[in-house]
Amino acid sequence: MKTIGVLTSGGDAPGMNAAIRAVVRTAMHHNLEVYGIHRGYRGLLEKDYEVLNSRSVSDILQRGGTFIKSARCPEFNTEEGVKKGKKIIMDLALDGLIVIGGDGTIRGGLELANEGVNVIALPGSIDNDMGYTDFTIGFDTAITTVMHAVSNLRDTSSSHGRVFVVQVMGRDCGDIALHAGIICGAEEVIVPEVPFNIEEITSNIRRAMARGKSHYIILLAEGAADPFLFTEKIQELSGINTRLNIIGYLQRGGSPSSFDRMLATRLGFHAVELLVQGEQGVAVGIRGNKVIHKNLQQAIEARDSLDKDLYQMAKILAV
Amino acid sequence: MKTIGVLTSGGDAPGMNAAIRAVVRTAMHHNLEVYGIHRGYRGLLEKDYEVLNSRSVSDILQRGGTFIKSARCPEFNTEEGVKKGKKIIMDLALDGLIVIGGDGTIRGGLELANEGVNVIALPGSIDNDMGYTDFTIGFDTAITTVMHAVSNLRDTSSSHGRVFVVQVMGRDCGDIALHAGIICGAEEVIVPEVPFNIEEITSNIRRAMARGKSHYIILLAEGAADPFLFTEKIQELSGINTRLNIIGYLQRGGSPSSFDRMLATRLGFHAVELLVQGEQGVAVGIRGNKVIHKNLQQAIEARDSLDKDLYQMAKILAV
Amino acid sequence: MKTIGVLTSGGDAPGMNAAIRAVVRTAMHHNLEVYGIHRGYRGLLEKDYEVLNSRSVSDILQRGGTFIKSARCPEFNTEEGVKKGKKIIMDLALDGLIVIGGDGTIRGGLELANEGVNVIALPGSIDNDMGYTDFTIGFDTAITTVMHAVSNLRDTSSSHGRVFVVQVMGRDCGDIALHAGIICGAEEVIVPEVPFNIEEITSNIRRAMARGKSHYIILLAEGAADPFLFTEKIQELSGINTRLNIIGYLQRGGSPSSFDRMLATRLGFHAVELLVQGEQGVAVGIRGNKVIHKNLQQAIEARDSLDKDLYQMAKILAV
Amino acid sequence: MKTIGVLTSGGDAPGMNAAIRAVVRTAMHHNLEVYGIHRGYRGLLEKDYEVLNSRSVSDILQRGGTFIKSARCPEFNTEEGVKKGKKIIMDLALDGLIVIGGDGTIRGGLELANEGVNVIALPGSIDNDMGYTDFTIGFDTAITTVMHAVSNLRDTSSSHGRVFVVQVMGRDCGDIALHAGIICGAEEVIVPEVPFNIEEITSNIRRAMARGKSHYIILLAEGAADPFLFTEKIQELSGINTRLNIIGYLQRGGSPSSFDRMLATRLGFHAVELLVQGEQGVAVGIRGNKVIHKNLQQAIEARDSLDKDLYQMAKILAV
Repeated sequence: MKTIGVLTSGGDAPGMNAAIRAVVRTAMHHNLEVYGIHRGYRGLLEKDYEVLNSRSVSDILQRGGTFIKSARCPEFNTEEGVKKGKKIIMDLALDGLIVIGGDGTIRGGLELANEGVNVIALPGSIDNDMGYTDFTIGFDTAITTVMHAVSNLRDTSSSHGRVFVVQVMGRDCGDIALHAGIICGAEEVIVPEVPFNIEEITSNIRRAMARGKSHYIILLAEGAADPFLFTEKIQELSGINTRLNIIGYLQRGGSPSSFDRMLATRLGFHAVELLVQGEQGVAVGIRGNKVIHKNLQQAIEARDSLDKDLYQMAKILAV
Repeated sequence: MKTIGVLTSGGDAPGMNAAIRAVVRTAMHHNLEVYGIHRGYRGLLEKDYEVLNSRSVSDILQRGGTFIKSARCPEFNTEEGVKKGKKIIMDLALDGLIVIGGDGTIRGGLELANEGVNVIALPGSIDNDMGYTDFTIGFDTAITTVMHAVSNLRDTSSSHGRVFVVQVMGRDCGDIALHAGIICGAEEVIVPEVPFNIEEITSNIRRAMARGKSHYIILLAEGAADPFLFTEKIQELSGINTRLNIIGYLQRGGSPSSFDRMLATRLGFHAVELLVQGEQGVAVGIRGNKVIHKNLQQAIEARDSLDKDLYQMAKILAV
Repeated sequence: MKTIGVLTSGGDAPGMNAAIRAVVRTAMHHNLEVYGIHRGYRGLLEKDYEVLNSRSVSDILQRGGTFIKSARCPEFNTEEGVKKGKKIIMDLALDGLIVIGGDGTIRGGLELANEGVNVIALPGSIDNDMGYTDFTIGFDTAITTVMHAVSNLRDTSSSHGRVFVVQVMGRDCGDIALHAGIICGAEEVIVPEVPFNIEEITSNIRRAMARGKSHYIILLAEGAADPFLFTEKIQELSGINTRLNIIGYLQRGGSPSSFDRMLATRLGFHAVELLVQGEQGVAVGIRGNKVIHKNLQQAIEARDSLDKDLYQMAKILAV
Repeated sequence: MKTIGVLTSGGDAPGMNAAIRAVVRTAMHHNLEVYGIHRGYRGLLEKDYEVLNSRSVSDILQRGGTFIKSARCPEFNTEEGVKKGKKIIMDLALDGLIVIGGDGTIRGGLELANEGVNVIALPGSIDNDMGYTDFTIGFDTAITTVMHAVSNLRDTSSSHGRVFVVQVMGRDCGDIALHAGIICGAEEVIVPEVPFNIEEITSNIRRAMARGKSHYIILLAEGAADPFLFTEKIQELSGINTRLNIIGYLQRGGSPSSFDRMLATRLGFHAVELLVQGEQGVAVGIRGNKVIHKNLQQAIEARDSLDKDLYQMAKILAV
């Protein structure tokens, strides 16, 4: 094994740079050369890359985003695209390829693995929507960003006795809303996985306000309801001034948290160690504070489901 | 002089609590009693208040919002409302009233002053839209919040080579957009005071991207354009992926910055000193790092205008 | 079960308030009354407490320290002290007692348990020095504080080409130094568990500086060496300007991180659930992202040891 | 005018990079070439520099420190050193030189100006100890760093009922202690400019603690007393547990605050504008929110004195 490639694909997530750094530094340790492929699978198809060394990854541990850039690449969803990718990997003489990203990225990795490329995948996604790993790289930073945003909104909520609906990311997965709700002490958490009853919510609001509560924060996952209609309905039914704030892309960026830096570093380190040990065709993740790996097919199939105990706890503590 | 009142009215702004603390502590120093009137003029009309002492204002210096709460009060825009307010002030035997808020708040203060109440006004507004003072309480914190938000967005902008339109507050006043634009190094700043040419902007974008720039941030003040249409147009004309992020209410909250804590503290302190010296009917502000005061009528009439030199500088530095 | 007590003892740690909040809210859910005992075992011996309700714990989730206060209490190390504590617990008719703190706190809990008190302990300590749990409440916040501090120091280190020795907490346990070292990308980590060779370090420094590295950060755990002598020696042997910064008590305070809020909330919640289920005499912790409990004796005896793999990884990545 | 140089000298200060960026971008606007001289006057004497362009200063606005590095240079205090510097400036054909730093830096600039070099100086210093300008670049960030540190310490101070002595920078100038004291709500501020009475302080502490205050923060400027002896004395005389925390080099680093970014940008911009207009031999500063300039001799001679009104206000508000 002489040369490996690394790429980041799909939506960027804080900690991707920390993972790349760990990949590069660990590869150096094993005397491997590392090619940083630009803009994910798109850059692969365009043979757009740079040679990375120890200095290339100085001072990137703390940066959000991904310095080798990311992109979506529809062409790579075709058989032709994958075959072209495989050919370029052979041209570049890559003995291994580490791909960092979400579900789509792993799927692309599996296609390449099926063509005989030595692929290792890392979970980079703010949504924590990958079932084979307890946490994805970027999730802890995303909920920290939401936590700070909600802290600001609570000031205004308290000062004016208003309800705030805060839309956070999560089309199919309510993890950001649920975890952020717990760490913010939000009064309600609405996730796509659990149906909600708007009358129950508004009666909760009225009761809380009557008891003297001065703020009321509802965390609403993207996929759970239309935020504008939901907010209007809450105001209409509760009779209390209700404002909507969409956190949006803020959640994608920012310097990674301690947790994400550690997670990304450990996973990046182990990805290279596995390659060196001859392992391939696997996705690396974390389960119970231990780094684990699953074959790519299993990783893709692993169902992610909402933690019902946590959801129950959130309900009890919000009272 | 034995007793004074303090209230916060209109939109909350970070530093209002620091101002109240300074008012209370300075009043204690002069052996005055202080009534904290809840929810601005609305609370005044409802005789809703609490007696404040040194302990009431412990540990509030660093908090966003206003712990005596704020509200809008249409009733106070009527002659009847003002007369009722005046009567309650006499019932409470207030020898002075300090009002903290924006233009509307000062206007309310002027009405009371015209009825013979000893009013001092402080500028509390995140918009920096009050012409008689260089800075309003809350503005520096608001631009700091925007600065952090843009820093997050830039990570994603760079990673994906996307344009980001960031809508910030400012219906008539572009100060948040302009100042935040300079301190963030935004590529474009669009303010209500200066017409913009969308073709010029998109050709700037194309040129910058061609030169290899990987991010492009446009700060758009609320009053300058519809953010959805603007974003669509930019994408259409530039041919480059363009995303919109509306910062929204985040800008209102948060722990006040150093600058706002100092400003609020100095203004609150001087407001009481002025009352004690027999001054009244004035608005306290800052001009060139010196605390100043203007009579309320003049303060309301002072035109706020965009700093053209600063705007010019922003253009030059964004290149 | 009708009434339970909660106390925090020993050094304060960020997240203690979040744990108390979870204890109180969960107890309310089970219709239990909660007494917050002030200043740990000292307050217990002085029967100094307050009744806590849902409102008492509003807006404390995000605060550092412990609002029921903490203290050290030598008297409680005596048999007499413990018997007196037990008597007061009977006087107060407490059916259970939740103690939050480090090793000494659990030891005190065990003494009370041996006297027949229903005790549940939670690990509150910034040092992560408790072997029965993967993480202690406060640790993640402490390393985050170090991370921000080192980020500041690196600016100056880079600007001046200086070495910085950064002393962090950890008398017997190098976890803060090790974890902070990894997430900061420190060039060296010195822990009490592993002997160091000062000549090796200085030759590393010289080599790195010769290679063009402009900063060099050494994280030194409290128990590993005298910081003043160590710094002097480094400067003397390397011939490069070397500065010392002692982070100190900063590490104890601050708003808890996402991770610590979640950990503290989950542990506080489970402590009450366990009491309600009739469990007692145990310490609650986290193992592999699952809440677990051990009997108090075992919890005290569990040896905490440095994670050798992590240490090895830190060495490889620092190159 | 074709080519100008820029250097940073003395202790680094947050905002120096923002100033360099403004210098470079404004110079580009005027079609000037810019040489970034490395490590201040030392690099000048070694002819160590790089050509800077618009891209060199991308993404540095938000970084602490100085990317062209700084150093102290005793050789430049000699006549010979200055003459050598002048010769190199002629060799490089620099039509102007912008120097950023503290008193020593301006003094060096004056020496060069006396030899006929077109020098403009900018005030870069965290200490705010330069009399000709209201604020120096870096000061606002430094007090913000202290503000966050004290916020952490207050958590522990409150939890344990302890006094904290917090040593901040300022050998001759108490501005950091005074301003930070006001914005932190510190209970005492000790500055070099005003003698203190330790018995008065300890009796204040006892009175405050007796009144129920749970925390007590004393901000001690570096030049006002030996921090170890002072802390010991406070504990001895007050009988209350007293801890010392030395903030140290943390104060030098960190991403510049809004205020410092704006200040540095405005001053950097004006420095180049002045050069272009044929002005030289001056130091640029800010007075009452207006950019001003003074000749270098006057700038050096301007006495910096503590703002007595502010000091008085701090005393009144701390009660």
